[in-house]
Amino acid sequence: MIYFDNASTTKIFKDVAEFMCDYSQENFYNPSGIYSKSIKVFNDLENCRNKLRGYLGADDYQVIFTASATEANNIALDSFVQKNKKVLIGGGEHSSIYETAQHLRQQGFDVVFLHLTTEGKIDIEDLKNKLDDTVGFVSIMHVNNETGAINDIANLTKIVKSKAKNAIFHCDGVQAFCKINTNLKHLGVDAYTVSSHKIHGPRGIGALIFRKGLPIKTFVFGGGQEQNIRSGTENVAGVMAFVMAMEKMQKNLKANFDHARTLKTRLLQNLTDTDFVLNGNEENDSPYIVSLSFKTKGEVLLHMLEEEEIFVSTGSSCNSKHKGNRVLTEMGKDKTSTDGNIRISFCEDNTEDEVDIFCKVLKEKLEKIKGLNIWKK
Amino acid sequence: MIYFDNASTTKIFKDVAEFMCDYSQENFYNPSGIYSKSIKVFNDLENCRNKLRGYLGADDYQVIFTASATEANNIALDSFVQKNKKVLIGGGEHSSIYETAQHLRQQGFDVVFLHLTTEGKIDIEDLKNKLDDTVGFVSIMHVNNETGAINDIANLTKIVKSKAKNAIFHCDGVQAFCKINTNLKHLGVDAYTVSSHKIHGPRGIGALIFRKGLPIKTFVFGGGQEQNIRSGTENVAGVMAFVMAMEKMQKNLKANFDHARTLKTRLLQNLTDTDFVLNGNEENDSPYIVSLSFKTKGEVLLHMLEEEEIFVSTGSSCNSKHKGNRVLTEMGKDKTSTDGNIRISFCEDNTEDEVDIFCKVLKEKLEKIKGLNIWKK
Repeated sequence: MIYFDNASTTKIFKDVAEFMCDYSQENFYNPSGIYSKSIKVFNDLENCRNKLRGYLGADDYQVIFTASATEANNIALDSFVQKNKKVLIGGGEHSSIYETAQHLRQQGFDVVFLHLTTEGKIDIEDLKNKLDDTVGFVSIMHVNNETGAINDIANLTKIVKSKAKNAIFHCDGVQAFCKINTNLKHLGVDAYTVSSHKIHGPRGIGALIFRKGLPIKTFVFGGGQEQNIRSGTENVAGVMAFVMAMEKMQKNLKANFDHARTLKTRLLQNLTDTDFVLNGNEENDSPYIVSLSFKTKGEVLLHMLEEEEIFVSTGSSCNSKHKGNRVLTEMGKDKTSTDGNIRISFCEDNTEDEVDIFCKVLKEKLEKIKGLNIWKK
Repeated sequence: MIYFDNASTTKIFKDVAEFMCDYSQENFYNPSGIYSKSIKVFNDLENCRNKLRGYLGADDYQVIFTASATEANNIALDSFVQKNKKVLIGGGEHSSIYETAQHLRQQGFDVVFLHLTTEGKIDIEDLKNKLDDTVGFVSIMHVNNETGAINDIANLTKIVKSKAKNAIFHCDGVQAFCKINTNLKHLGVDAYTVSSHKIHGPRGIGALIFRKGLPIKTFVFGGGQEQNIRSGTENVAGVMAFVMAMEKMQKNLKANFDHARTLKTRLLQNLTDTDFVLNGNEENDSPYIVSLSFKTKGEVLLHMLEEEEIFVSTGSSCNSKHKGNRVLTEMGKDKTSTDGNIRISFCEDNTEDEVDIFCKVLKEKLEKIKGLNIWKK
């Protein structure tokens, strides 16, 4: 089996899963309890916050753990948008930002979407045009989940703050976290979202990291857990496992990145004699994600590859049941490209051999359908 | 060690934890994917919904999995309350209902709290007085988490529907689920909340079960998971483990209940020569929870018991950082009782020997402090 759908979800590390299993039995106490065993668990959780802060260079930031990055993104928008202030949203955001922004617009908020360049990055000229001191909130993702396009967040925060000094800048860092070096102070962001299950951690864990003092709102009411922002008994075993996965990924970040670059370069070189479009920029984008379009239906290719136990996706999973591809359309891609899109996404376990097999199989499949009516001329 | 704080959280079953560990590695695929391995995982998740429906006798109900019962309660209130319609809330509800209701009141909703009897149940006369056809939503818990008081939900839904035909009746079933026989149709509720970590399942999983066709609202926006009510990649391993715990508990429900009754009766008999108040009714309440008050600080007793590796709580964990005890106060208990409260809560693993040791140690501790100024006369 070749699993090339790591941007959708990753396989949890075996030792992380086993650790979670053990921790959940040995340290099952409720962190809200007032006896020592509860306090130990509470301290473990606080220690996880510190580790995440440390890794992200985010000393002056608050960390809350959520059930998903989607929830963290919802909390960020729910908290930081202001009535009577313009809201700027990247044109290629994940559905957890995009759909929340659409909802806010229905609620009467002044939501403006930013255009993408043909390479899938934020169009800086468009940002400058839309930027003024009425802007109260900006959300732009770090690495696009469909194309791997990397936004230069440090530059974007400077541009935003130069014209809208008090605007809050949120960044969805899910596809960047533990894959490219990230320092929140350096990036200049006010809030940042990360996910566990994209880095071989357990499902059901995300986090929102935000500058202390920001006007955060309660999202889930109850016992006051997570600094009264999202109540519910804390999944400490899950958070501990997430942080363990983070530390493993962090240790190998540079080597993993270089390895992914090798895989992406090899894949594109192997396909040079094939008729495809790369959605993005080979050199500047994240090496973990490769978005290709062929002159057929992406879904057809996906299932033909699946026959050979090779797993890729068409766009993002969180968008798989929607028609069309919002991000590629925003990049100005034509219908042939959006229909014919597949996404290959790597993790550090993938090998050059797998890339070679993938390319060989893909070429065979393309040959097969080139004569058929599902191949566009 | 004697763990008598099971109403706060339970230890996950060893085989359930191990199953979750294995499943999360073998079936890590994203259920939103369109290839067969994803579809298998998606079907596993659907099967969990069916099992939960089956266990609760809830054929015509929809099931959504959440990150906690707290979140499920928030979704219920957020969805089902209506502006211009009265909202009735039980006087002893868990903080996830109580705090959400307080928030709704601040938003301008007409929220009315129902009184409790001295035994901790909903005061039916008070309910009848407050009930009229302007009532749009009612939320009353099944079993109180602090006292074990059981509300006769089947009777309460009849009373509500007789005067407010279209009112939506929600019930927080966290402390009843898998502990007392529960059939939603029989209870006549429109929506019901359950939790995983109270029944030896994993942390981070709850569910809201509600009649099909009710006006449910999106709580977390994004990829449209959980029937577009709460987006975020599904924690399928967690849900599978939860349902496995449910099936184990369900199989032994009657035997476990009888065992808990034996423990509660034995505990109260052992303490007959001791100066305490039982908050509740020995015969009618859940045998899993025993709420006692002594003429000293509950916190003092808790820590004295902790010295001997016996773990109880003062009130609920989700309320442990608040001053006073809202539920006992609502029951009309005086300050001595609310200050001197400890909660003992059993699971099926607790033994009669543990009860005997607990009572012996408690009596010794009480003797010790009776001469001191922390003992109230």
